[in-house]
Amino acid sequence: MRTIETLKPGDSVDHYFLIHRATQGVTAQGKPYMTLYLRDKSGDIEAKVWTVTNDEIKMLIPETIIRVKGDVIDYRGRKQMKVNQFRVAVEEDNVKLENFLEAAPLTIDEMSEEIMTYVLDIENAKLQRITRILLKKYHHEYYTFPAASSHHHNFVSGLSYHVVTMLRQAKALCEIYPILNKSLLYSGIILHDLGKVKELSGPVATTYTVEGNLLGHISIISDEISQVAKEHNIEGEEVLLLRHLVLSHHGKLEYGSPKLPMVKEAEILHFIDNIDARMMMFEKHLKKVDKGQYTERIFALENRQFYKPETLD
Amino acid sequence: MRTIETLKPGDSVDHYFLIHRATQGVTAQGKPYMTLYLRDKSGDIEAKVWTVTNDEIKMLIPETIIRVKGDVIDYRGRKQMKVNQFRVAVEEDNVKLENFLEAAPLTIDEMSEEIMTYVLDIENAKLQRITRILLKKYHHEYYTFPAASSHHHNFVSGLSYHVVTMLRQAKALCEIYPILNKSLLYSGIILHDLGKVKELSGPVATTYTVEGNLLGHISIISDEISQVAKEHNIEGEEVLLLRHLVLSHHGKLEYGSPKLPMVKEAEILHFIDNIDARMMMFEKHLKKVDKGQYTERIFALENRQFYKPETLD
Amino acid sequence: MRTIETLKPGDSVDHYFLIHRATQGVTAQGKPYMTLYLRDKSGDIEAKVWTVTNDEIKMLIPETIIRVKGDVIDYRGRKQMKVNQFRVAVEEDNVKLENFLEAAPLTIDEMSEEIMTYVLDIENAKLQRITRILLKKYHHEYYTFPAASSHHHNFVSGLSYHVVTMLRQAKALCEIYPILNKSLLYSGIILHDLGKVKELSGPVATTYTVEGNLLGHISIISDEISQVAKEHNIEGEEVLLLRHLVLSHHGKLEYGSPKLPMVKEAEILHFIDNIDARMMMFEKHLKKVDKGQYTERIFALENRQFYKPETLD
Amino acid sequence: MRTIETLKPGDSVDHYFLIHRATQGVTAQGKPYMTLYLRDKSGDIEAKVWTVTNDEIKMLIPETIIRVKGDVIDYRGRKQMKVNQFRVAVEEDNVKLENFLEAAPLTIDEMSEEIMTYVLDIENAKLQRITRILLKKYHHEYYTFPAASSHHHNFVSGLSYHVVTMLRQAKALCEIYPILNKSLLYSGIILHDLGKVKELSGPVATTYTVEGNLLGHISIISDEISQVAKEHNIEGEEVLLLRHLVLSHHGKLEYGSPKLPMVKEAEILHFIDNIDARMMMFEKHLKKVDKGQYTERIFALENRQFYKPETLD
Amino acid sequence: MRTIETLKPGDSVDHYFLIHRATQGVTAQGKPYMTLYLRDKSGDIEAKVWTVTNDEIKMLIPETIIRVKGDVIDYRGRKQMKVNQFRVAVEEDNVKLENFLEAAPLTIDEMSEEIMTYVLDIENAKLQRITRILLKKYHHEYYTFPAASSHHHNFVSGLSYHVVTMLRQAKALCEIYPILNKSLLYSGIILHDLGKVKELSGPVATTYTVEGNLLGHISIISDEISQVAKEHNIEGEEVLLLRHLVLSHHGKLEYGSPKLPMVKEAEILHFIDNIDARMMMFEKHLKKVDKGQYTERIFALENRQFYKPETLD
Amino acid sequence: MRTIETLKPGDSVDHYFLIHRATQGVTAQGKPYMTLYLRDKSGDIEAKVWTVTNDEIKMLIPETIIRVKGDVIDYRGRKQMKVNQFRVAVEEDNVKLENFLEAAPLTIDEMSEEIMTYVLDIENAKLQRITRILLKKYHHEYYTFPAASSHHHNFVSGLSYHVVTMLRQAKALCEIYPILNKSLLYSGIILHDLGKVKELSGPVATTYTVEGNLLGHISIISDEISQVAKEHNIEGEEVLLLRHLVLSHHGKLEYGSPKLPMVKEAEILHFIDNIDARMMMFEKHLKKVDKGQYTERIFALENRQFYKPETLD
Repeated sequence: MRTIETLKPGDSVDHYFLIHRATQGVTAQGKPYMTLYLRDKSGDIEAKVWTVTNDEIKMLIPETIIRVKGDVIDYRGRKQMKVNQFRVAVEEDNVKLENFLEAAPLTIDEMSEEIMTYVLDIENAKLQRITRILLKKYHHEYYTFPAASSHHHNFVSGLSYHVVTMLRQAKALCEIYPILNKSLLYSGIILHDLGKVKELSGPVATTYTVEGNLLGHISIISDEISQVAKEHNIEGEEVLLLRHLVLSHHGKLEYGSPKLPMVKEAEILHFIDNIDARMMMFEKHLKKVDKGQYTERIFALENRQFYKPETLD
Repeated sequence: MRTIETLKPGDSVDHYFLIHRATQGVTAQGKPYMTLYLRDKSGDIEAKVWTVTNDEIKMLIPETIIRVKGDVIDYRGRKQMKVNQFRVAVEEDNVKLENFLEAAPLTIDEMSEEIMTYVLDIENAKLQRITRILLKKYHHEYYTFPAASSHHHNFVSGLSYHVVTMLRQAKALCEIYPILNKSLLYSGIILHDLGKVKELSGPVATTYTVEGNLLGHISIISDEISQVAKEHNIEGEEVLLLRHLVLSHHGKLEYGSPKLPMVKEAEILHFIDNIDARMMMFEKHLKKVDKGQYTERIFALENRQFYKPETLD
Repeated sequence: MRTIETLKPGDSVDHYFLIHRATQGVTAQGKPYMTLYLRDKSGDIEAKVWTVTNDEIKMLIPETIIRVKGDVIDYRGRKQMKVNQFRVAVEEDNVKLENFLEAAPLTIDEMSEEIMTYVLDIENAKLQRITRILLKKYHHEYYTFPAASSHHHNFVSGLSYHVVTMLRQAKALCEIYPILNKSLLYSGIILHDLGKVKELSGPVATTYTVEGNLLGHISIISDEISQVAKEHNIEGEEVLLLRHLVLSHHGKLEYGSPKLPMVKEAEILHFIDNIDARMMMFEKHLKKVDKGQYTERIFALENRQFYKPETLD
Repeated sequence: MRTIETLKPGDSVDHYFLIHRATQGVTAQGKPYMTLYLRDKSGDIEAKVWTVTNDEIKMLIPETIIRVKGDVIDYRGRKQMKVNQFRVAVEEDNVKLENFLEAAPLTIDEMSEEIMTYVLDIENAKLQRITRILLKKYHHEYYTFPAASSHHHNFVSGLSYHVVTMLRQAKALCEIYPILNKSLLYSGIILHDLGKVKELSGPVATTYTVEGNLLGHISIISDEISQVAKEHNIEGEEVLLLRHLVLSHHGKLEYGSPKLPMVKEAEILHFIDNIDARMMMFEKHLKKVDKGQYTERIFALENRQFYKPETLD
Repeated sequence: MRTIETLKPGDSVDHYFLIHRATQGVTAQGKPYMTLYLRDKSGDIEAKVWTVTNDEIKMLIPETIIRVKGDVIDYRGRKQMKVNQFRVAVEEDNVKLENFLEAAPLTIDEMSEEIMTYVLDIENAKLQRITRILLKKYHHEYYTFPAASSHHHNFVSGLSYHVVTMLRQAKALCEIYPILNKSLLYSGIILHDLGKVKELSGPVATTYTVEGNLLGHISIISDEISQVAKEHNIEGEEVLLLRHLVLSHHGKLEYGSPKLPMVKEAEILHFIDNIDARMMMFEKHLKKVDKGQYTERIFALENRQFYKPETLD
Repeated sequence: MRTIETLKPGDSVDHYFLIHRATQGVTAQGKPYMTLYLRDKSGDIEAKVWTVTNDEIKMLIPETIIRVKGDVIDYRGRKQMKVNQFRVAVEEDNVKLENFLEAAPLTIDEMSEEIMTYVLDIENAKLQRITRILLKKYHHEYYTFPAASSHHHNFVSGLSYHVVTMLRQAKALCEIYPILNKSLLYSGIILHDLGKVKELSGPVATTYTVEGNLLGHISIISDEISQVAKEHNIEGEEVLLLRHLVLSHHGKLEYGSPKLPMVKEAEILHFIDNIDARMMMFEKHLKKVDKGQYTERIFALENRQFYKPETLD
C-alpha cells in the first residue's frame, strides 16, 4: 500500500486513513462540503469531500478511520485529495489506530530501559531522587507524548525519544569535556521538557492546553521540581541548579527562557537540545527529496532550504 | 546638616555617614588605602581614605556608621570625598541606622492598611485567599524590602510602596474601563514582585541572592502561588490566571517574562508597573536638576536625558 | 434583526447593509462579478455578487445602502456572504446612513462638554489658548473623525472618544503623581492626534490622504500648533513643549516620532495613549468570543491571541 | 608653527590656542586645577593647568585665546597637554579668532555663488520661490553654521559646504538618471538641513539649543517651509513634496525621520547626504594616518576602522 | 500590438507570447490544466489554459513562443489571462526570441566600448590587467547575463548595463571627491558582480545554480580574482584590495558580505551599487502608474510604496 | 614559583616574565615611564615601570624575557604590578621562551597523529585528498598557531587542539545520527579555520594581518581549497560542498559567513564549533573562581557571568 508521503498528483487511492482534523464548509453554490486532514504513519494530506450528506458529516470526525476512494490533485502547488467515495472502517476491516500514527523508532520499553541506565549514572543522590520521582509520577505521559505539536519530534513517544538521543550526546560530551557534571546534565536533560505532559493535550491530535498557553512547559516543570523537592524534603543548591537548567534551556530570553544559562551544564543542555531537534528535522525533510534537490523552506530552521548532495550519502 | 545630595566640590564636611560598601586598594607607592561608598537618606558618594592603618581597615566595614572630617572634590566630573579623619560612631553619638537609609514616603502601617483595603475589594474568594496567605507569610519582608537593587524604588519599603501606587492606578483604570476584572488585577499587582523577597538579600546593602540569579523573582513567585494553592486545596482556572499575570508582567520575552500577556489584566498590569517605575525615576532624577536643565542620562529610561521646563512646575 | 457580527456560516439574510468598498472582478468564465464589503454598526463582511449586469455594477458603489438576500458561507475559514438578490434602498425604506456606522458610545455633545471641563483645568494661559483655538478651528472634524482607518477607535467620533478616555486617565495620574503638570499633559492629550483630521479622508470609508502619506499626522499637528502660536503671537517655551509632546507621542523613533520623549509629560502621554488603544482593542475583540476561548491573532497587539477566562467576568 | 594635529607626546609647545571648553577640578590634595580643551584650525587637545590661582581661573573661559608654554604627554593612550605657563592674548599679539577655527575650504562668497547657480536651475517656480525666501531669511546663519556639533562638517560654514558638494552630486545623478526631477531634488538639498540654524547654537563652541533638543532640525525646517508657503500664498502639491523631502531625509524612522521616503527624489536625497557625510569623514580621519595604517574606530561609520593602502594614493 | 504591461482586465488578446514558466495542475473535477507565465518585452502575466490535451501539454514548455487568443481577467486583484485558444509559433510567423525578452537600453557594442574607456582610465597596471583578463575570459556571459533573477536589472545584458551606469556615477564622484582612487573604484565596479555569470543559469528563464546557492557570487568572484592573479603572477596589496572591494560590496554582514568595507572605495562602491539598483527599480515601477498614484509595495525597497507626483515630471 | 594567575594585591615578586606588549608614557611631571604587559604560562598582567632611563626603554621590547622585582597592587579593581627593579634575562639564566607561553594540553605529535586517524576515516577520495594536501602545505602553521587572538583557544597550537576536540564530537554525533556524512563533516572540521594561518600573525603576540582584516579567514580558506582543487584537477560537487562548509561555518550572516548553512553537515559543523569554543572558555574562566562564586562577565559568552556551584564538581 502506498503511503501519503509517496502520493503524487494524478494518483488514485483506495486506502484506509485516519481523520486528524475535520471542518465543514459551504460551496459558492450553497452546498455543504467537508475539508479533512487525513493521516497515516508517513504524514498527512488535505482532502475535500465535495458531496456529502448531513448523516455523512456526522461520521467525519477526528480520530475516526475511514476507507477512501479518491484522486490526488495539485492545488496551488500542494497535494490535495479529492474524496470520491468513503466509508467508516469497521471491526472486520481489522485496522488499528496505532498503524496510522507516526511513532518513535524505539519501543517504550527500549527507551525506558535506556533512560534508566542514565538515571543510574546520576551520582548526586538528590538529583537522582528528584529525577526518579518525576519519571515515575508521569511515566505514562512521558513515554507516549510527542515533544511538540509541530516542527520536531511531533510523533507518539517523541518526548522520550528526544531525551534518549540527547542523553547519548551528553554522554559523549562528558567524556570529551570532563569538566561537565554528569549528574546535573543528565537530570536536566531527562526533565527539561517534562512540562509538556501538561502543556500539550496528548499523543494524538495534539493541541495546547489552557495551562500550556498561560504558563508554558518551562514554568510548569520548574514548579513540579520545586513541589517534589518540598514534599520529599530534598533541600540544597542542587534543587536550584536543576530548576535553573530547565528554566534556561531555551537559551535566550526571546525564546521564552526567563533566565539565561548561568552554569555550564545549562548552556550545554541548550546546545544538545538544539542539535537533536535539528537532526530530527533534517531526517524528516531530507527523506522527502531526491539527491541533487532542495527541501522546501523549513520554518523552524530559520526558513532555510537544505540541499541534498548528488555525490554523497 | 547638609545631605550628600547637596554637597558640592569644594565643600568641607564633618558629618556622620553610613558605610554602604568598602574595598581596599594599594597606592602606586605600595601603601594601603580604602574606597568607601558613604550614604545618608539623600544618596551616596564615593570616598577615599588615603592614609589608613591596618586596625582602621578592620573598622571600615559595611553597615557601620562613621563620623567623617573631609573635603568634597571633583574627580573626572563626579563628586568624591577625601576623608581626612574619621571615627566609628558610638552609642553616645545617638545616631541610628534608619536615619541613614532612604525609605518610602509612607509608613509601614499606612501602606499595610491601604493595601488591605484593596485586598477586601478582591471579590473572587480564591484570589483573595491566595493573596492574603502570601501577604501574611512574607509580611515582614514585603513591607521592608526595596523593589530593586538599583534603578527604581531601591529604598527601604520600596517594594510595598510600589504596590500601593500601582493599586491606586489600577483602581482608576477599573473605573474608566469597566471590562477590567478588579479581583485579578488587584491580586496580580499585590503579588507580582513578591518573589523579590527571595531574589534580593534584604533592605540594606541589597544584592542578588544565588536563588535570585538562578531562578529570578518571576519564577519564584509563580512557584509560591502554586505551592500555596496546593497546600490549601485551592483549585481552578483562577490559580492559572494569577500565575499567568506574574509570569507575564515584564511584558516581553526579552525582559525575562517566559510568557507574553494573554489576558487583558496581564497586559494592563505590565503597563501600570512600567508607569509607576518611570514616575519614581522622574521624581528621583528631576529633583536633582534646576529648571531649564537636563538630567544626566538615565540608563533605565533607555539612556535618555530629561528636560525640566523653565516655565512650568 | 441580526447584525453582521453575529452571522454564522449557514445563515440566510434579508437585511439592509452599507456598501463600504466595492471592486469588480471577472470569473474564470469571463463574466463580471462584484466583491463588496458590507457594513452595519457591528462590523463588516466580504460579499460576492456572482451574477451582475452592467447597470447593477454602476449601482454598487461605496456609501450606498442596499437590501440583500443571501447566504453566509465559510470561505477558507472566514465568513463570506453570497448575494443572491439585492436592490438599492429608497427613501420609503426609511433607513439612515448613521444606523450603519459604528460610533463612539458618547454623543458629540457629551464629549464636547467633557473635554471642555478639562480645557478649563489647563491653568497655563498659553497652553489653554492654543488648545481652544485649535479645538474651535477643527471642531467639526474633531468630533466626527475616527482615530484610525483600522486597528483601534476606527469608528465615527473615534478621535474625540479616544481623547475623552485618555483625559480621564490623565486626571487620575495627576492625582496619584502630583509632579505631573496638568496643563501640559491635558493640552498634549487633546491635540496629540488632531493631525488626523488632515491625514485621514473622513469619518466614512476612511483612507489616507496624500498629505497624510507624505507628512503624517505628527508633523501636521506640530505645524498647526506652530502656525497658531505665530498668528496669535503666543511665544515662549510652552509652545516648544506642546509641540514636543505631539512630536514624541509615538514613544519610539521606529513608530514615527522624530523625537523621543524628553519631558515627563511626553513620556506619560505615550503610555496613556497606548493603554487606551489597547483597552479599545480588547473590548472589540473579546466581545466576539465566548468564555474559555481565544480571540483571533490581533495584529496591532503584536499578533497575540488573548484568552477570555471561564471563571471571571 | 606646529598645529595641534601634528603634536606628539614628548613635544614642547609655546603657541597660541583658543579655549573651547574649560572646567574646574580639585586635586586629591584639595587644590584647584583647570581642564581646558584647546583648539586651533587643525583640531583640539585636552590640557591640564595643575597650578592655578583664583584670578587665573576667571581668565580661562571659552572663546578666549591664550599663549601656552607646556609639554605634550601621553595620558592613557591619548595626547594631553600639561600647561606650565600661560597668558591671555592681547591686541598686540595680533592673533584672530578666525585663525583658530576650522572652516570650509570655500569662501562664503564662492559657496553663495555656486548655490545660486543651482537655485536658478530649479525650474518649478513654487519650489524656487520657497528656496530663495528661506535662503535669504537665514542667509547669515546658513553660510556660517556647521552641519553638526561633532561627526561630519563640524566646522565654520560646514552647513553650506555640505550643501554645495551634495548639489554637485545631484547634478551628476540627474544627468545619468533623467527621471529624477531636478527642481525637487535641488530645492530639497538646499533646504534639508536648514533647521540646524535653530537646532545648533552657532558656529563656535556649538551645542544643541532647547528648541533643537525638543523639536529637532527636521521638524523645524518642515515648519519653516510651511510658514513661508502660507505667508506667501504658495499652494499646491509641491509644498507637500518639499516638506516630505526634508521630513524623510534621514532615510529611516530610527534615524529620526517621521516618514520614510515615498518619492524617488526623497530616497536619492538621503543617499547623496549619506555619501557626502562619509566622504568628509574619510577625508578627516585618513589624513591623520600613514599609508599602511588604520584609522581609529570611527563612531559615525558604524564604529569601523578604515585602512589606508600602502600602494595606492 | 498592445504589450503585457498595458493589458487591463476585460481586454481580449490575439498575440504572440514567450512561455517563461509552465506548470501542470488538475482541476477539482480531476482534469488537467496548465498554468503559464507568458512574457513579452514589457513584462509577464500568469495565464490559465483550462482545457488542454496531453499532446498540447507537451508543447507548452518554457522558451517556446505561442500565439494566444484569450481574455484578461482580474483574479484576486492581479491580472490573469484566460487562454481560449493557442498554437505554437512556426518559422513563417517570423517572430524571434529576442523580441520577447526585455533587454538593456544599450547594445552590447555600446556597453563594451563604454566600459573599455573606463578600463583605460585604470592607471594602476595590476588592477587594469586583472580587470582586462576577467572581462575577456567571461566576455560573452558578461554582456548577456542579467544582474539578478528578479528585483533589479533582471533583463538581458542587465549585468553590464548595471556596470555602465555605476561607472558613470563613479566618474562624477571621483571629480567631486578627488581623494577617491579611480583605479581601485573602477576595477571594483567592473568586477563586483561578475560572479553572477556562475551564480545564475543564464540570460533567459534565469534561476540559481547549485554553485550559486552554495557559494554565492561574492565568493565566486573573489576566488576568480585570486586565481587570475596567481596564474599571471600578479602580486601585491592591490590584489587584496580588489578582492576586499568585491567581498564587502553588499555593505553589511547581514546582506552576505563576509567583511565590512574597510577602505573608502569599498564603502563608496556599495553606495553606488545601491543607488543604481534603486534608480532601476524606480524606473520599472513608476512607469506602470499614473501621476497622483502610488506604486504597489516594492519588496526590494523595504516594502515601501512610492508616490508619483501630480505636479512634477 | 607563583604564577601570574595566582598573584594577589599585596604580593611581592622576584620572577622572570615575558614582555608581551610595551608602550611608553610620560608622567604628569613630564618624565618617561613604561607600561608593560607581562606574561607567563598562566596569564598576563599590566605592569608599570615608573622610573626608567632611555637605555632601559630600548631594552623593554616585546618578546623579551626580563627578571622583575616588584609589588602587586590593586588599581581600580584590577591587579597591576609596580616594577621596582628589572634586568633582561641572559643565557646563563637558562629561561626559555616556550616556558612563558600558554599551550595546548596535547603535544604537536599527539595532535597530528590523532587528526591523521580522522583523515583516514574520510572515505570520499576527493575530500580526503584536498584535506591531506592542505594539511601538508601548512603543517607547521597549523600545529603552532592559536585559534584566535583573544577569546578562545588563544594559545600556542590552539588551532589544531580546537580541531582535535571538534573531531571527537563529530565522531560521537556520526554514531548517534547516522545520516551525517562523515567524510564531509571531518574534512570540513579539519579545514574550517585553516585560513587563520594567514589571518593571524603567528603563535606569539598574535595580531591580525592586513590580509586577515581585508579578506578574513573564511574567504582565505575557501580560496585555498579552490586553488588546490584546480591545481590537482579535483572536480565535482564535493569541492563545492567543502567550500560551502567553510564559508557557512559561522552559522549566521551577521557573524561573517557569506552563506547560511544549506547542507546538514554545514549546520552541525557550526554547532560543534560553537560548543567547543564555549567549553574552552568555561574551562579558562571557571578555574579562576572559587566554588559558590561567579566568573567575571565574559564578553564572548554574550557578556554573561557564570556560577560555579558550591555542591557539585
